Amino acid sequence: MIYFQCDYAEGCHPRILEKLTETNFAQTPGYGMDTICDEARAAVKRVCGTPGADVHFLVGGTQANTTVISHILRPWQGALCADTGHIAVHETGAIEATGHKVLPLPNTNGTITGDQVRAYCTDHFNDGSHEHIVQPGMVYISFPTESGTLYSKAQLTDLYAACREWNLPLFIDGARLGYGLMSPACELTIEELAQLCDVFYIGGTKCGALFGEAVVITNDGLKKDFRYSIKRHGGMLAKGRLLGIQFLTLMEEGLYFDICKQAVDYALEIRAAFEAKGIEMFGTSMTNQQFPILTKTQMEAFDGKFAYEYWGRYDESHSIVRFCTSWATKRENVDALLAAIAEL
Amino acid sequence: MIYFQCDYAEGCHPRILEKLTETNFAQTPGYGMDTICDEARAAVKRVCGTPGADVHFLVGGTQANTTVISHILRPWQGALCADTGHIAVHETGAIEATGHKVLPLPNTNGTITGDQVRAYCTDHFNDGSHEHIVQPGMVYISFPTESGTLYSKAQLTDLYAACREWNLPLFIDGARLGYGLMSPACELTIEELAQLCDVFYIGGTKCGALFGEAVVITNDGLKKDFRYSIKRHGGMLAKGRLLGIQFLTLMEEGLYFDICKQAVDYALEIRAAFEAKGIEMFGTSMTNQQFPILTKTQMEAFDGKFAYEYWGRYDESHSIVRFCTSWATKRENVDALLAAIAEL
Amino acid sequence: MIYFQCDYAEGCHPRILEKLTETNFAQTPGYGMDTICDEARAAVKRVCGTPGADVHFLVGGTQANTTVISHILRPWQGALCADTGHIAVHETGAIEATGHKVLPLPNTNGTITGDQVRAYCTDHFNDGSHEHIVQPGMVYISFPTESGTLYSKAQLTDLYAACREWNLPLFIDGARLGYGLMSPACELTIEELAQLCDVFYIGGTKCGALFGEAVVITNDGLKKDFRYSIKRHGGMLAKGRLLGIQFLTLMEEGLYFDICKQAVDYALEIRAAFEAKGIEMFGTSMTNQQFPILTKTQMEAFDGKFAYEYWGRYDESHSIVRFCTSWATKRENVDALLAAIAEL
Amino acid sequence: MIYFQCDYAEGCHPRILEKLTETNFAQTPGYGMDTICDEARAAVKRVCGTPGADVHFLVGGTQANTTVISHILRPWQGALCADTGHIAVHETGAIEATGHKVLPLPNTNGTITGDQVRAYCTDHFNDGSHEHIVQPGMVYISFPTESGTLYSKAQLTDLYAACREWNLPLFIDGARLGYGLMSPACELTIEELAQLCDVFYIGGTKCGALFGEAVVITNDGLKKDFRYSIKRHGGMLAKGRLLGIQFLTLMEEGLYFDICKQAVDYALEIRAAFEAKGIEMFGTSMTNQQFPILTKTQMEAFDGKFAYEYWGRYDESHSIVRFCTSWATKRENVDALLAAIAEL
Repeated sequence: MIYFQCDYAEGCHPRILEKLTETNFAQTPGYGMDTICDEARAAVKRVCGTPGADVHFLVGGTQANTTVISHILRPWQGALCADTGHIAVHETGAIEATGHKVLPLPNTNGTITGDQVRAYCTDHFNDGSHEHIVQPGMVYISFPTESGTLYSKAQLTDLYAACREWNLPLFIDGARLGYGLMSPACELTIEELAQLCDVFYIGGTKCGALFGEAVVITNDGLKKDFRYSIKRHGGMLAKGRLLGIQFLTLMEEGLYFDICKQAVDYALEIRAAFEAKGIEMFGTSMTNQQFPILTKTQMEAFDGKFAYEYWGRYDESHSIVRFCTSWATKRENVDALLAAIAEL
Repeated sequence: MIYFQCDYAEGCHPRILEKLTETNFAQTPGYGMDTICDEARAAVKRVCGTPGADVHFLVGGTQANTTVISHILRPWQGALCADTGHIAVHETGAIEATGHKVLPLPNTNGTITGDQVRAYCTDHFNDGSHEHIVQPGMVYISFPTESGTLYSKAQLTDLYAACREWNLPLFIDGARLGYGLMSPACELTIEELAQLCDVFYIGGTKCGALFGEAVVITNDGLKKDFRYSIKRHGGMLAKGRLLGIQFLTLMEEGLYFDICKQAVDYALEIRAAFEAKGIEMFGTSMTNQQFPILTKTQMEAFDGKFAYEYWGRYDESHSIVRFCTSWATKRENVDALLAAIAEL
Repeated sequence: MIYFQCDYAEGCHPRILEKLTETNFAQTPGYGMDTICDEARAAVKRVCGTPGADVHFLVGGTQANTTVISHILRPWQGALCADTGHIAVHETGAIEATGHKVLPLPNTNGTITGDQVRAYCTDHFNDGSHEHIVQPGMVYISFPTESGTLYSKAQLTDLYAACREWNLPLFIDGARLGYGLMSPACELTIEELAQLCDVFYIGGTKCGALFGEAVVITNDGLKKDFRYSIKRHGGMLAKGRLLGIQFLTLMEEGLYFDICKQAVDYALEIRAAFEAKGIEMFGTSMTNQQFPILTKTQMEAFDGKFAYEYWGRYDESHSIVRFCTSWATKRENVDALLAAIAEL
Repeated sequence: MIYFQCDYAEGCHPRILEKLTETNFAQTPGYGMDTICDEARAAVKRVCGTPGADVHFLVGGTQANTTVISHILRPWQGALCADTGHIAVHETGAIEATGHKVLPLPNTNGTITGDQVRAYCTDHFNDGSHEHIVQPGMVYISFPTESGTLYSKAQLTDLYAACREWNLPLFIDGARLGYGLMSPACELTIEELAQLCDVFYIGGTKCGALFGEAVVITNDGLKKDFRYSIKRHGGMLAKGRLLGIQFLTLMEEGLYFDICKQAVDYALEIRAAFEAKGIEMFGTSMTNQQFPILTKTQMEAFDGKFAYEYWGRYDESHSIVRFCTSWATKRENVDALLAAIAEL
């Protein structure tokens, strides 16, 4: 069986294992206060062009989302997001567990717009009962989105402008950030993205690390006491260096970007193969997730050979499924898949 | 500088890195649903003599404590524990973050007794205002305790009896479980301990793993929907196999116990060395943490050579400090420390 | 100005003030443990035909909703409700403040169906990722709904059957219960309604009391420790007798039902008057809230004379507004309004 | 039976009932937005000498404490208080229910000092592990305390100075404020008290009202969005005017202070009577609560005639009990009690 069902099926880039092995018996202080983490934080800031940012390494995406969001919001506030947003759908109420409502907005290809934010805030504060309604307190987006799509430069610029008009911090979930930035459809560099939000994270778990997300806080007003929040959410890794080592390795010589680019290239080959067969794709993803719309017969042609993920019903005779590539995807497996698609 | 200040200064047992490297490109499902995790869960149950238990791998101790405690309690209940308990002191209110009060009882050498639990519950329910007071809903202890001490078999048996009399699940935090069980002062096997509580965990982070704790739920009434709780607390590791690999390795051929035993042996050599110099020890720890009571001059004799942890003020002229050994402690470093102690 | 904008514009039925005055210097124990509360609880149970129920008096609707819902749910569960449900829209995230997600279902005239519940639960547990999604843990409905509509006997019977199939307690918010039960369109008695749910409340605030809601718990499994939950949510009124006096008075000789019936009768006269003018009504309310769809000119005709509530935009030239009657509505004011409608 | 067991055994001052009756059919907007509440807020500000304050009326003490504290704190912070503080002991974890740890300090006669706050904060921020410990975020005290005692002017001045040094808002729970201010031992006026804290409340429930507490926020930084917090905690009374009417009545012509003064005078007569019999008093209360230390025989002499509250065990042969007076206590009942004491 060849797995294309997700982007966390393998371990990590071999250089990370090498580095973990090399440093294994080095003695360091705990909780991310070691020199390796210092170097990794410096590397992240250098790559992002944000010398003044605070960088924190967290274990996973849900933890990062919960920690950041509950750190930002006041108790009576909620987080605006796309109704397809990970926090709205797939985190077992982790945001609500911190006392905050998720405020979903209708998505367009997985994205939301500045005007949606403006309209929501205008409506909220114009409503005579607004004190009876959760106040919008921040905006959460994913880049790329859960649908594999990207915000254009104009769209993100306008969304961030709307956020600043309404004094809403903008938080970008970058669980798959590398796959977004390396897409040929991406109009933004990481430096630009860092300027167009208040806090974001560079996803490691799905982009070459064993685990870990690097949270980058650029808004000074959000920096204070963040480590208390990390600990309060059970996210203060005793051997914090494990995260430092991984991000240091990934940031060195552009490794993170190189391995993500390859994954995107493979994904676009797969997309092209489906389209060449006249198979319609769900959405417009130009990143590492691809969503062909298949008949039952087409799905069965893959069964037992290729693992994919069922994404949802399309119509009476078609389903949407997901094929993912990752930093670990092998050329030979892509070729095998391309051949299988060609034979559909 | 030689580090004795904590038991999480190094990476992990080399066999774990080997195993991670070997399996690195194997493709597995995520979230702990893979066959390696299955094997690891089976190994844990075998070692604990609890074939019917549910085993879950979590990333760290605070996360394990929070997830277990909030899974057990009803909203109006709190967790009884020693006032030195980790949840009472060092988790930035992670338990309160889930809406529950920690109910501290005065400790004796880090432990609490069945009679303290009985008295607390009797007083609570006899109080005419008990509905105005947080209801005791479970008991949390650490084995070994935060002071390095152990519950005797009689003490734990009676504590658990008290818990059952009052219908309070007993949860044992085993962040340093291996160092407790391998102490010559320990009267309990892991099988016996597993019978004397409702849920406990086998600490990995401090006992040979990179990170991770294996939660073992023996009480059927606490098993349902635990994975929802894990995800809700941001603890569902995407590459769950990382934890499975580690615990599978540690459980194989008694590795976990062997490496912990060595650490305890070293610690007791260090204790003996202090005592031989007439230096009083704080508490009665027979595990991997040792707490000599030192003068300023004695402390300075170590500075720059040996890292230890300041634990608290003892009297005008003395401080309590902590020296820890771990699975990674080297013979040569112990010898250097013993020599330094001898020269005090 | 004559107020029809809500059903809480006046104080309370005069008999309540008389009773408060009569008993003012009687000395009673606090927190609802007095004999007046005992009598009131007995009266509520008699009226509901639920001799085995537990009855608790709470101060207001949001408090009742929050206390009941957080008492029922386990941490990883949420409450299914209509997307127009009060808890989903107008309680400033009070449910989320207790850590629980509200799970809105599309409403039909303010109601949801048993089949919607069945489909939601089937989909949830069939989803391979269900542990990543908030688990449905109960169902919340309002009777009458926020739109003034009613569940038919068949609809409520089927909804409750669905709840029992999926082991979901059904909670009925009866903030306006009297206005529902006294509608000519209502197919249910209070005794029948009490048999078709696990917990409900009899709204006092909007139905003749100064304030207060009587929570009736019929499901034995939900009764334990409810007073702890009340106190934990700040809802344990020191002078609990204030609530006892009010509900005792309202339950005596059917006062509650008589005064609510009059309000509904008036409301239906108002509805008929709008319809007689050819003015379309929004929804099918046969209770004390009526929602005519008016032009700007029509709205202005009321301004300065009659207070109503703006409910929402209908189309480019029309708005939905709300006219409410209550137990306190005076015949002469209804007549004035009817005359004004006739002149539109 | 004559009740002295608490200060909430009766209804309310008759003028309030008169005013409620007079205004009963006046139509007002809900949620405290009516003109009566406006007048009441103005009256409170006038009495407190705080023209710039925000005043909010809440239903009860636990609700006021929870709403204020959760409004002030950031998630990782806790509230310092005396270990006898109401929030620490008697609110069923309502503060923890909002995610915050209560941080109890050892009390002296129910009070804490500025130096205790300074020492706690110094220790906290000097601790290398402070990010693993709940951060002190505010200070909560009661005036008078739960033991009936008072802060001297010097003590409160120094405590507030300490709070400002550490940037901790000071919140004064004034559930029995009137009984404190009217004590002959009180060194503070309400205007002075209002200057020595950031937020406080004027207790109504125990001081002449049916129910209700008037929260006075003087610190501009704490004012924003407080009404969202009220609603989120289920504390937004639909008929908010009920609270406005009560506080307006109590503030008029010093009624609040007059009726509280009488209660304190009676209490001090009772205290003197016990002392005249050579009976020791527990603590130094000069307010409406008195705590004689009685033998079993002495306690039995009251039984069946006078209700008092058991407060705790004093020694093998003595118990502490509480006798309370209130605004409603009658001269004749005090005389009967004085006679009974004389006969002990």
